[in-house]
Amino acid sequence: MLDAIRRTEQLSRVELAAATGLSGQAISNIIRRLLEAGLVREAGRQKTTGLGKPRTLLRLEPTGQYAVGVHLDPAVVTVVLLDLTGEVVARHQLVPPEDDDPDVLIDAIAATVEAVIAEAAAPRSRVMGVGIAAPGPIDAERGVVVDPPNLSTWHLVPLRDELRERTGLPVLLEKDVTAAAAAEKWVGAPGNFVFFYLGTGVGAGLVIGDEIIRGTSSNAGEIGHVIVDPEGPVCHCGRRGCVGDTSRPRYLVHQAVHAGVLAQSIDLDDRQAVDAAFGRLCALAAEGPGVAREIITALAERIAKAVEDVANLLDLDRVVFGGPYWEPLGPLFCDRVRAALDGRFTVRAIHPLEVTGTALGADAGAIGAGSLVLDHTFSPERELVAER
Amino acid sequence: MLDAIRRTEQLSRVELAAATGLSGQAISNIIRRLLEAGLVREAGRQKTTGLGKPRTLLRLEPTGQYAVGVHLDPAVVTVVLLDLTGEVVARHQLVPPEDDDPDVLIDAIAATVEAVIAEAAAPRSRVMGVGIAAPGPIDAERGVVVDPPNLSTWHLVPLRDELRERTGLPVLLEKDVTAAAAAEKWVGAPGNFVFFYLGTGVGAGLVIGDEIIRGTSSNAGEIGHVIVDPEGPVCHCGRRGCVGDTSRPRYLVHQAVHAGVLAQSIDLDDRQAVDAAFGRLCALAAEGPGVAREIITALAERIAKAVEDVANLLDLDRVVFGGPYWEPLGPLFCDRVRAALDGRFTVRAIHPLEVTGTALGADAGAIGAGSLVLDHTFSPERELVAER
Repeated sequence: MLDAIRRTEQLSRVELAAATGLSGQAISNIIRRLLEAGLVREAGRQKTTGLGKPRTLLRLEPTGQYAVGVHLDPAVVTVVLLDLTGEVVARHQLVPPEDDDPDVLIDAIAATVEAVIAEAAAPRSRVMGVGIAAPGPIDAERGVVVDPPNLSTWHLVPLRDELRERTGLPVLLEKDVTAAAAAEKWVGAPGNFVFFYLGTGVGAGLVIGDEIIRGTSSNAGEIGHVIVDPEGPVCHCGRRGCVGDTSRPRYLVHQAVHAGVLAQSIDLDDRQAVDAAFGRLCALAAEGPGVAREIITALAERIAKAVEDVANLLDLDRVVFGGPYWEPLGPLFCDRVRAALDGRFTVRAIHPLEVTGTALGADAGAIGAGSLVLDHTFSPERELVAER
Repeated sequence: MLDAIRRTEQLSRVELAAATGLSGQAISNIIRRLLEAGLVREAGRQKTTGLGKPRTLLRLEPTGQYAVGVHLDPAVVTVVLLDLTGEVVARHQLVPPEDDDPDVLIDAIAATVEAVIAEAAAPRSRVMGVGIAAPGPIDAERGVVVDPPNLSTWHLVPLRDELRERTGLPVLLEKDVTAAAAAEKWVGAPGNFVFFYLGTGVGAGLVIGDEIIRGTSSNAGEIGHVIVDPEGPVCHCGRRGCVGDTSRPRYLVHQAVHAGVLAQSIDLDDRQAVDAAFGRLCALAAEGPGVAREIITALAERIAKAVEDVANLLDLDRVVFGGPYWEPLGPLFCDRVRAALDGRFTVRAIHPLEVTGTALGADAGAIGAGSLVLDHTFSPERELVAER
């Protein structure tokens, strides 16, 4: 019911009855309870054609409930507060110290959760819970982050329970790419798509038939070792040209330094320096033809090969790019991926494969994690993990 | 209801009420109708502990309904008749002439459909329809086979409607790998698996969360251009070492001839000669160490790479091998794939990835196509394509 109202923004009881197949009486009873709970409100009347009396329109009451979304990326932690409509009403970021104790970082995350709730002046009783998106693999059943890249001291950290203890709120742990795909599903058109996540690693969030694909242990989306460049560098897995290894900003910056496009003095072991250099490389590539553009075009061609494999396996109709390193790459990148995919999508005679960037920017992971908590309001049959 | 009875083989009304959540009265009404329709029968009584009266057991009536399953493989067409329990009660094969008119082959298939119905003496009124599994890509909406490999005269053949016209039965068209996955789902344990199809091409039938994954246009499962051997031969797609290209019997036989294991005289353009030579190569590999075994081990390693990519993307718990070229490869092959996958499945710390061969043999595609027709009896909400 709530989801039907959410998706159309506003709706009358008559339209709800048509959309849900419930009787007018049943609709009226449910709506009365939703009004009492403060989750929907009446929003004016709709003129009808003909003789019927005007219909009262219903909208979600944004302040009816809230959810916190956290995205734990090794480079930056993003914390958002979403209202019931999924709008971001407060947002904070914090940079995790690279070799710090998990306890210290979880303390900082808990404090930031409190900060976004306070900033929006959201009544605590209306905050349903916290969704946290973390790099995989995760042990979803135990709420444990197994071994995230670039957080060297994190091994088997019981993130879900630790955060629940500190905040007193139910907590739901999800893989970062899955959360990002959930965000895209929440705001985007229906369809079968991969959210291609460009972060410290690459990953694939999957939505098929309007369902998020999580796999056996909620760890779907691992694509780092797809071979995309047979003549590429040797990956730690022993093979050449894995997409994860050759998509890292560190690798691209190294290529640019080697080609003389960026200064020799960049310290490749300093993540922030590498991130800044990667931004400069993308800016140079956007300026016009040259070595910088060739490096980014070659990246687009490698990524396109991984997209091709996933899209052909799952007969997708869309690829959506996002993640922390997506924004600097910009619209140039989509064009290059499209060009590289040309003629390679097996069922192109039957339907096209759309290539696009997320409209959610770098916050997709955090928004997705929060939206999964809100999903619990809209589809109560799905339990919040913390309540198991 | 029928599916609950099918899955447990026999069940009492009381157990059915527990399994479905329906009232005893509702169960009794439904069962009465199923008994009248001849779809279930009473099969003795079950002693109960305590004071209750003995419960009447219900079983499927195998002769209650039938479905025909056809697998159109370029090398051989298999036609089976399934009874309501999914048992094969009749089976015929025919070898399609390589460069023949589609009309001639469809005539032959229609005649074989009649032959299996006649052989089992199945009353025509109880034959629900024909499921036909064909190589992709297919245009599922129009029931059209777009461009199958090795059937050079087949382009945009309206197989579904042609076969419906000739047999007078509803016809359902499905991709071969999807049908094979459906068969495995019908007989096998639940789980998230790929049916890895080794035929004229390779393909991946997918089942996740007990649902068959078809994708946007029922063409999911295309994996032929996954790169598995960076130093392999150049594929027609322009890249090196695609899994489809390097898994063909023709390629393996060519390798064996080149290495002096098989006779120079084999005509690589004669499919039947190549198939026979491939059988000899597999037999040599099974005999013991040597060049033949090295060729098959290298094949297993390439296939393992494609399995690795799919299993990591979808967080699978099982890979099931099958298809026309699976049987000669035999159990040796599973061991080699397992060895090659060792350490490469990303979430191996969380759950294992089982590697196994199908128990359905070369008939998986045909059985699967028939089981999809039977599914219609068990889940009536899914329309038979021919009835749209």
